[in-house]
Amino acid sequence: MSTIKKTNDESHPIIEDIYKDIKQTRNTSYIGNFWKYLAFDPNLLKNVWTDIKNIMVKESLIPNKTKEMIYMAVSITNNCSYCTHSHTAAAKKLGMTSEEHSEFLSVIALAAKTNQLVNSIQVPVDDIFNEDIEK
Amino acid sequence: MSTIKKTNDESHPIIEDIYKDIKQTRNTSYIGNFWKYLAFDPNLLKNVWTDIKNIMVKESLIPNKTKEMIYMAVSITNNCSYCTHSHTAAAKKLGMTSEEHSEFLSVIALAAKTNQLVNSIQVPVDDIFNEDIEK
Amino acid sequence: MSTIKKTNDESHPIIEDIYKDIKQTRNTSYIGNFWKYLAFDPNLLKNVWTDIKNIMVKESLIPNKTKEMIYMAVSITNNCSYCTHSHTAAAKKLGMTSEEHSEFLSVIALAAKTNQLVNSIQVPVDDIFNEDIEK
Amino acid sequence: MSTIKKTNDESHPIIEDIYKDIKQTRNTSYIGNFWKYLAFDPNLLKNVWTDIKNIMVKESLIPNKTKEMIYMAVSITNNCSYCTHSHTAAAKKLGMTSEEHSEFLSVIALAAKTNQLVNSIQVPVDDIFNEDIEK
Amino acid sequence: MSTIKKTNDESHPIIEDIYKDIKQTRNTSYIGNFWKYLAFDPNLLKNVWTDIKNIMVKESLIPNKTKEMIYMAVSITNNCSYCTHSHTAAAKKLGMTSEEHSEFLSVIALAAKTNQLVNSIQVPVDDIFNEDIEK
Amino acid sequence: MSTIKKTNDESHPIIEDIYKDIKQTRNTSYIGNFWKYLAFDPNLLKNVWTDIKNIMVKESLIPNKTKEMIYMAVSITNNCSYCTHSHTAAAKKLGMTSEEHSEFLSVIALAAKTNQLVNSIQVPVDDIFNEDIEK
Repeated sequence: MSTIKKTNDESHPIIEDIYKDIKQTRNTSYIGNFWKYLAFDPNLLKNVWTDIKNIMVKESLIPNKTKEMIYMAVSITNNCSYCTHSHTAAAKKLGMTSEEHSEFLSVIALAAKTNQLVNSIQVPVDDIFNEDIEK
Repeated sequence: MSTIKKTNDESHPIIEDIYKDIKQTRNTSYIGNFWKYLAFDPNLLKNVWTDIKNIMVKESLIPNKTKEMIYMAVSITNNCSYCTHSHTAAAKKLGMTSEEHSEFLSVIALAAKTNQLVNSIQVPVDDIFNEDIEK
Repeated sequence: MSTIKKTNDESHPIIEDIYKDIKQTRNTSYIGNFWKYLAFDPNLLKNVWTDIKNIMVKESLIPNKTKEMIYMAVSITNNCSYCTHSHTAAAKKLGMTSEEHSEFLSVIALAAKTNQLVNSIQVPVDDIFNEDIEK
Repeated sequence: MSTIKKTNDESHPIIEDIYKDIKQTRNTSYIGNFWKYLAFDPNLLKNVWTDIKNIMVKESLIPNKTKEMIYMAVSITNNCSYCTHSHTAAAKKLGMTSEEHSEFLSVIALAAKTNQLVNSIQVPVDDIFNEDIEK
Repeated sequence: MSTIKKTNDESHPIIEDIYKDIKQTRNTSYIGNFWKYLAFDPNLLKNVWTDIKNIMVKESLIPNKTKEMIYMAVSITNNCSYCTHSHTAAAKKLGMTSEEHSEFLSVIALAAKTNQLVNSIQVPVDDIFNEDIEK
Repeated sequence: MSTIKKTNDESHPIIEDIYKDIKQTRNTSYIGNFWKYLAFDPNLLKNVWTDIKNIMVKESLIPNKTKEMIYMAVSITNNCSYCTHSHTAAAKKLGMTSEEHSEFLSVIALAAKTNQLVNSIQVPVDDIFNEDIEK
């Protein structure tokens, strides 16, 4: 159940264009729910797809698989169920193996644990971290 | 200001051992505040350092720089200030360049934005993600 | 599935009173799940309904539709699914149009994105904000 | 203390342009820390300022003061200190009175309280919310 | 630095009453910053103090020390720095020892770690938990 | 739907050992979904069970029922649905009554409310909390 209706009508020119670009860029005929709900506001759909294409799909310095794993880490910590599913699937499609997935789980579990400890203790930031920046 | 006192006395045998191991493993003479506060409970200090050493310091399938960037992503999303500082510093030490840092910022900002959109719309998970798992 | 049982018995005097007041105040015969589960503890039910009535239902300086949109923003950010559904419905009932809903989505998505950037950079607060307060 | 260095050099053509536009649009000579740190990556600076200008500064259906209060609600819930300061200041500049600020506090405090209750009880979403959407 | 001004004037009748009650109830002459800032809105001050007095100060089934430790757990997870400080201090005043504080840290660190794992895996809820409720 | 597959094969020696230990320690024949999904990575399964056994099952200074209530508080605040269900069930099994559950709800709801207020006001930490630590 969602707070807005899924848009099945693809006749709006912006929606049509974006769906075509998604299909071409990703070499698929499948448009996920995220896009079908975002199509509620064609400009928002366009804005988000443009970001995804430029940042996540385009080759850049950080390998795409790594970018998806960073995206997964944010989505899991924000407890966004849909995003956790879709970006885990994306990382796997880009080659994340079961072994890497296991390591990933250990890293994010440890991060959550130490974040909680630091927040409970309210550990003051070492001056040394500042010196690194000022160099 | 913290909720527990910093431990400056290093004579406790567990603390002594762990500090020695941190210094050796990291090839440094500096012990950060995180460890000095955790030393409030020597067993907790040992438990956390063992995790960090096994998961973050030991070479594994995911490169250490990437592991630190995943750790950064969790820490930033949990808004843990100390952790954000220390793991950003760690990623830089392991070779994260300014350009990669910029890309990282774009990825985590986009993730936070789409997480928020998905949660506001309550987008239902596509069945296709399940099929991937069942394969 | 919930952690406590839904209360279907309305014979408890506090529950009876509150349900009557909810129905009258909202001009409806429907009591939502939130109230039926809170009725597990009649005093908590009374406490929460009194707050909702005084803060959200009573006319005040901030228009009720706006108050519901602020409530939505908190609920979405906390990723409270039930609350996101119920307060989105409430805002719509109070006149939030599809166009306003679209604008709302853009605002909260941008806020989440810049919050994430600020937390990752750890931007220090400008002194100018303090001067504003001290005036 | 921040994780990246503040950019004081404004000679980069994108930075120069954006700062000029910020000053003109807001009729001020002051550039806040947020922008000075974002300038670390001129394209990110441009991307974020374009969003802020289009969504928050441009007049639209939701009054700008209300948009800032929604932004405040997200920033507070994400516990982004800088954002809470800057958007509270922005809402005040756009006319949010002390009385409205008080009401705002009551709304977001109540939202956080009921979000927590709903999450602890795991209240199932009423079917009625879905019917609203399907209409 | 705060988003509202600290109220030092105690002549408002509600503020005067509440401060007197806080001092008497807690047997202290010290009024913490939380109250001095809440006094910005005397009715909110009264509302919050009434809650604290009824829920946290009044003896009830859950011992007061335990209630403070539960309060600490929420405050730490929400990363509320002030609340983490004030409720850790309160728990200590009510008898929480260093050893109990250590155990508490281990519990909340483990909870954060397993929460993160569960959210990353999206573990489905066992039916057995439901049967417990229905009994 | 989950991001990894449930492990039904219990023939892996680590999985076999851990399941046996869980059944013996908890005097049950039921293995919950959490463990069956964690078994995806036998070493992670072992690591998490060892933590749970040492921290949550072993008798210590904080009574086990109280430890489960602290665990609940973290899980609810992180909005981890599975964890909220399983640890509420665990606290009940250890003797948490309906009346204590009600009190618990009031405490965590109040904590979430005041956390939100403090974060919105950005209340500065009183020096008095520091003096407590330094003693």
